[in-house]
Amino acid sequence: MDLIIDKEELIRGLSRVQGIVERRTTNMALAHVLLSADGDTLRLTATDTMVSLVADYVARIERPGEISVDAQNLFQVARQLPESTVHLKTEAGNRLAIVSGKSEFHLVGMSGEDYPPLPSRDDEAALAIPGTTLHRLIIETLYAVCVDDSRYGLNGAHLEAITAENGEARLRMVTTDGSRLSYSETAYSGEFNMGRQMLLPRKALDEIRKLCDGDKGDWAVAFGERSATFQTTGLTMMVRLVDGQFPDYRQVLPQSHKCRLILARTAFVDALKRVSIVASDRNHSVRFSFEADQLVLSAQNVDLGNAREEIEARLEGEAFETGFNIAYFLDIMRQTTSDELVLEMDKALDPCVLRIPGRDDCQFVVMPIRLD
Amino acid sequence: MDLIIDKEELIRGLSRVQGIVERRTTNMALAHVLLSADGDTLRLTATDTMVSLVADYVARIERPGEISVDAQNLFQVARQLPESTVHLKTEAGNRLAIVSGKSEFHLVGMSGEDYPPLPSRDDEAALAIPGTTLHRLIIETLYAVCVDDSRYGLNGAHLEAITAENGEARLRMVTTDGSRLSYSETAYSGEFNMGRQMLLPRKALDEIRKLCDGDKGDWAVAFGERSATFQTTGLTMMVRLVDGQFPDYRQVLPQSHKCRLILARTAFVDALKRVSIVASDRNHSVRFSFEADQLVLSAQNVDLGNAREEIEARLEGEAFETGFNIAYFLDIMRQTTSDELVLEMDKALDPCVLRIPGRDDCQFVVMPIRLD
Repeated sequence: MDLIIDKEELIRGLSRVQGIVERRTTNMALAHVLLSADGDTLRLTATDTMVSLVADYVARIERPGEISVDAQNLFQVARQLPESTVHLKTEAGNRLAIVSGKSEFHLVGMSGEDYPPLPSRDDEAALAIPGTTLHRLIIETLYAVCVDDSRYGLNGAHLEAITAENGEARLRMVTTDGSRLSYSETAYSGEFNMGRQMLLPRKALDEIRKLCDGDKGDWAVAFGERSATFQTTGLTMMVRLVDGQFPDYRQVLPQSHKCRLILARTAFVDALKRVSIVASDRNHSVRFSFEADQLVLSAQNVDLGNAREEIEARLEGEAFETGFNIAYFLDIMRQTTSDELVLEMDKALDPCVLRIPGRDDCQFVVMPIRLD
Repeated sequence: MDLIIDKEELIRGLSRVQGIVERRTTNMALAHVLLSADGDTLRLTATDTMVSLVADYVARIERPGEISVDAQNLFQVARQLPESTVHLKTEAGNRLAIVSGKSEFHLVGMSGEDYPPLPSRDDEAALAIPGTTLHRLIIETLYAVCVDDSRYGLNGAHLEAITAENGEARLRMVTTDGSRLSYSETAYSGEFNMGRQMLLPRKALDEIRKLCDGDKGDWAVAFGERSATFQTTGLTMMVRLVDGQFPDYRQVLPQSHKCRLILARTAFVDALKRVSIVASDRNHSVRFSFEADQLVLSAQNVDLGNAREEIEARLEGEAFETGFNIAYFLDIMRQTTSDELVLEMDKALDPCVLRIPGRDDCQFVVMPIRLD
């Protein structure tokens, strides 16, 4: 292999594989990125065997070939190189020479033949959605994926095709960790061909989120027997799906509410942040008093003291009190934007639905907690 | 105590005490800040018994008094408050009420009487230097203080009054950890009244550095039997000095050099950063080849590979090779500015002096290491 590539192009490619490669493993190859040069393309491949990324970058190939090297080391070197172009060349003993101006590196690598084979694809027809929309679906749901990987059925995002109230065919992404739930939807074109129910694992969602951020172009999403493929021009991500029966989440979605509170987002967020200083116990528990013209938050802590916040609000229904883990509300606030918010609840210990006015394509549900 | 204070003034005061208070202690009072209101001043006091800070802030005092509360908690609350003014008031049971707009906190505190007494001052006449100069002395030396507190005589900065070659009376701050040494000097007015040799501990230097950054006003520095006081308008820092015989560092300062290399700072720094990727062993050892028109850096690592960098330079004297821990050079680069640098050495295993052209008031010495 012998090629010249633009430094920024190389850095862009290497930055994308940093989250895929697996450093905490005895299999050194999984910490490597495979460089394959052919035609006018340098292809970078990375895999942790569960999530695999293959992406192509423009390069002037003098001699085709391949080699794998530690992805983090190569990235560190590339970012520091002095000139705007980089010369990459394989050398005897599976070394990769990196030359730029008066800088010269020779990194220890492995033969491309020793790089682990990627999972084979068996996916069917795909559906298409813009990258920016895929990004929205992920950020509006990812935070609620259960962090405990042993929680069967909760450790990933559930995908399904639904028909919205207006008759539109939509893709819905749903996540829950048992104490909260969120879903986000979008219209799509093409076919939703997912066979049996499987989950998209957290790491894959996180990497796709980075790749599609700000990308207005279409992404094709296709499902196979145990895998999914996310694809856009020059870039393919293959994901091994997680087995697991996602819970019957519709049972949790309230069908009615006796109480509805409308309030300004900024005032709510600021008050949550302040009261969280005192609500620092394990549950971050805060009392919510829904009153006629305000929401009152109050928290106490034996060691620290107590806090009380009043937020202007408009209540439809009768006043009542309940408790929440406010970390859950802060998580939702970080991932959404809007001027106003709506909280809907039936009784003090029923699930609370947080809606964004004007949007019927997402919903955030938080379970209350019993206060002493 | 009952007072109204500008929120930004309160935040400024509380941010300054965060580095002083000691959280990892069983003595809860050392994590507290003492608030004392009198006249038109809110005085904030913090101490870890070694370093103490007393500073005054403008406030409208309705009723004098004092209370101490956890400094970190009060800071967190203050930063989040909604309005530009804050009402602070002591309540029954040693609580501090903090009210701002519709936010209300009641923090658990301690009676001001239970706050530990500050060390009494016994210092003599002071010397005066501008805050910005004090800041320069500290940043040009602090990085070389030995981080091992058990290394008697090296775990702080040494101060002495010297006479410069041009006859000027100067204050010199010197630090070393045995492998490198740095000093930085300034002219001063007043008296250098330090009695027996003692060292300024690292934590105190770090806090003074933050306080005097950008402050063009004069700071008074006075020494007592076992302590030093750093003082400027409305702010006094008292420091317990560290016992310890600073080594006879003049023995280490080379009196002559056979070789002198002049090079551009940016090129040197960039090359150091690149080669440090490969020089990742315990010593960060890199070969320096001083050649007629260039400095060549080279490093190797069995696991990673090797690197070579050429930097344009002008050599006076004969070419030779030696080795260095380049982390030491990178440390110096982070704390200094200049377009060019001068390296002076006698023989391959003699100390290397790094000078900044045009400045006779600082010197950075790095010991070479033996390469295999």
